[in-house]
Amino acid sequence: MKTIGLILAGGCGTRFWPLSRAKRPKQVLKLDGDKEMINFTIDRCSPLIPKEDIYLVTNRDQAELLQEVTGSRMEPGRIFVEPSARNTAPCILYSALRLRKKYGDAVLCVLSSDQSVKKEEEFRRVLSEASDYAQSHDDIVTVGITPTFPSTGYGYIKTGSMVSGSDTVHHVDRFVEKPDRETASEYLHSGGYLWNSGMFISRISTILDRFRQHLPEMSQALSPLKHLSDEEAGSFLREVYPTLEKISIDYGIMEKENHIAVIPGDFGWSDIGAWNTLGDVIPPDSSGNVIKGDHVGLDTRDCVVFSGDKVVATIGLSNVVIVNTPDSVLVCSKDEVQEIRQLTDELKRMGREDLL
Amino acid sequence: MKTIGLILAGGCGTRFWPLSRAKRPKQVLKLDGDKEMINFTIDRCSPLIPKEDIYLVTNRDQAELLQEVTGSRMEPGRIFVEPSARNTAPCILYSALRLRKKYGDAVLCVLSSDQSVKKEEEFRRVLSEASDYAQSHDDIVTVGITPTFPSTGYGYIKTGSMVSGSDTVHHVDRFVEKPDRETASEYLHSGGYLWNSGMFISRISTILDRFRQHLPEMSQALSPLKHLSDEEAGSFLREVYPTLEKISIDYGIMEKENHIAVIPGDFGWSDIGAWNTLGDVIPPDSSGNVIKGDHVGLDTRDCVVFSGDKVVATIGLSNVVIVNTPDSVLVCSKDEVQEIRQLTDELKRMGREDLL
Repeated sequence: MKTIGLILAGGCGTRFWPLSRAKRPKQVLKLDGDKEMINFTIDRCSPLIPKEDIYLVTNRDQAELLQEVTGSRMEPGRIFVEPSARNTAPCILYSALRLRKKYGDAVLCVLSSDQSVKKEEEFRRVLSEASDYAQSHDDIVTVGITPTFPSTGYGYIKTGSMVSGSDTVHHVDRFVEKPDRETASEYLHSGGYLWNSGMFISRISTILDRFRQHLPEMSQALSPLKHLSDEEAGSFLREVYPTLEKISIDYGIMEKENHIAVIPGDFGWSDIGAWNTLGDVIPPDSSGNVIKGDHVGLDTRDCVVFSGDKVVATIGLSNVVIVNTPDSVLVCSKDEVQEIRQLTDELKRMGREDLL
Repeated sequence: MKTIGLILAGGCGTRFWPLSRAKRPKQVLKLDGDKEMINFTIDRCSPLIPKEDIYLVTNRDQAELLQEVTGSRMEPGRIFVEPSARNTAPCILYSALRLRKKYGDAVLCVLSSDQSVKKEEEFRRVLSEASDYAQSHDDIVTVGITPTFPSTGYGYIKTGSMVSGSDTVHHVDRFVEKPDRETASEYLHSGGYLWNSGMFISRISTILDRFRQHLPEMSQALSPLKHLSDEEAGSFLREVYPTLEKISIDYGIMEKENHIAVIPGDFGWSDIGAWNTLGDVIPPDSSGNVIKGDHVGLDTRDCVVFSGDKVVATIGLSNVVIVNTPDSVLVCSKDEVQEIRQLTDELKRMGREDLL
């Protein structure tokens, strides 16, 4: 059975403002080296998944941009376009239905487009193991990341008993929300928790079955797709897609499903959730500063400096994020990076669409 | 007797880095409104001093720039060029000697090129009063600014007894260095102290006499100038000027001289010594932020934001200076703006002449 990749690439551009924008979301940024995150994601699947078996799913607003950024990596036919953004469950269902028409059954690896992985070979080894397991079991398999610090920014997976006959695959006991710092420390020290990477692997037939079980209305609504030609599918989707429930795969399926397995992964993973976590992928210097670009500092500690076209000079600062882009400069306390969303809301209210 | 203006315009570009540069010193910046500081300085002398009686003195590096910036305000013949920068005493002596050749005697108003004055009419009234006094007395007259807060950034003048026959002119008791905060408060409350504005007014004959008295070697060294044609003066100066003592007019003459008068001035004066004092000339908003340019802030207090071409967004900051220029961004604690000099030294050490 073939293994195919489906990369979810419809995220919007808020958390990395002002570098990210509505039309330049995180997945096309070069946060983690000299290549766009989406291209790192595609490239790290090879050679486990052949290039022609990797697909992106995104929305209308970003399809052209993603085609441009991925270049020869993606032919247009492998970029699936949702008529509108309705969270991850509808887009995975839609993609799985299209892939079933093409492949019959296959092992589907659902991946995020904007995560960082330092040890790519180990990543492929774990993905291969998950793929083998998913092929021979009727389970959804998630990849859980072995925690390296008490993160309050990730959801966790509590592992259950070991799957019989395996020395790495566990049953999932339950998914848990982002914890507070104390709880995160308990999770780290107990050893029974993994970070929820958002990656999951299953046969196409398995995931479609779970949609029928947990999201029957959505499943029913899109079921005509299997009988429609590509041309008919277009107008059908434009009509039906906007009526689907906006729900994530986590809430819609994962947290309701009992038969989920998890494979621990330890491959230098980070989802780089916001500017303050850039240190996960760019090693801090001896003063704790995470620097990308031209920087000169005096008495500067634990700052993040990200600059494109200009030198950034800092004096007497700590715990500050500074981002310089061609049309804007952000200076933000590290403790308040979550307020960037509020700032972009404010810009919207002010009619500053030029900055969104 | 004519009143003429001599504007000292040879300052270098460090304190307002990165906006100021070696080739773009403070006096040509638009810190205080939409006009360069040097042009504000020239224009505010009119109509008290006719345009054709206003002179600049600067060094070789800045002469061309000043000509360009002042445009039709200054013909080339009214820009005096020192062969090299040797602090204020040599440049005032040199200028006074040139002006004596042209005017014989006159009242000379020596002004800084980079100070801000809010009440220009009152400024001219005080300058006129000082000029009248200087014409009829053999004193150097300084203008002392009535303090409005306990500044630790200015030198002070302790006033002595009132000059007989005047109700505004005092004898100077002594000049005092920049005080600490406690001393500055005492000065403010005692009422017997004024800020040293650096402006002084005297007859050309008076100031030349004081040079002979307090800086006899310098006076002697330049004395041949009076017999030389302009052409001969050029090569003479190139030879002699670099041998003159590097000393300020304050140390060289003012602090040694007993016959100095002071006239109090209260005309919204500031020398805008550094980024943190920009609030002296740009009124802070209700959060204490001093903003020039495009700014959006959340939870931002007591900051200075100065931006040319980009929006600056701030979140969760207080007491920070942010300056955005076409090739650089400075983010600096307000308490450490004096370290900007150390930063430019560091840039020099790094070979970053492009930024100096």
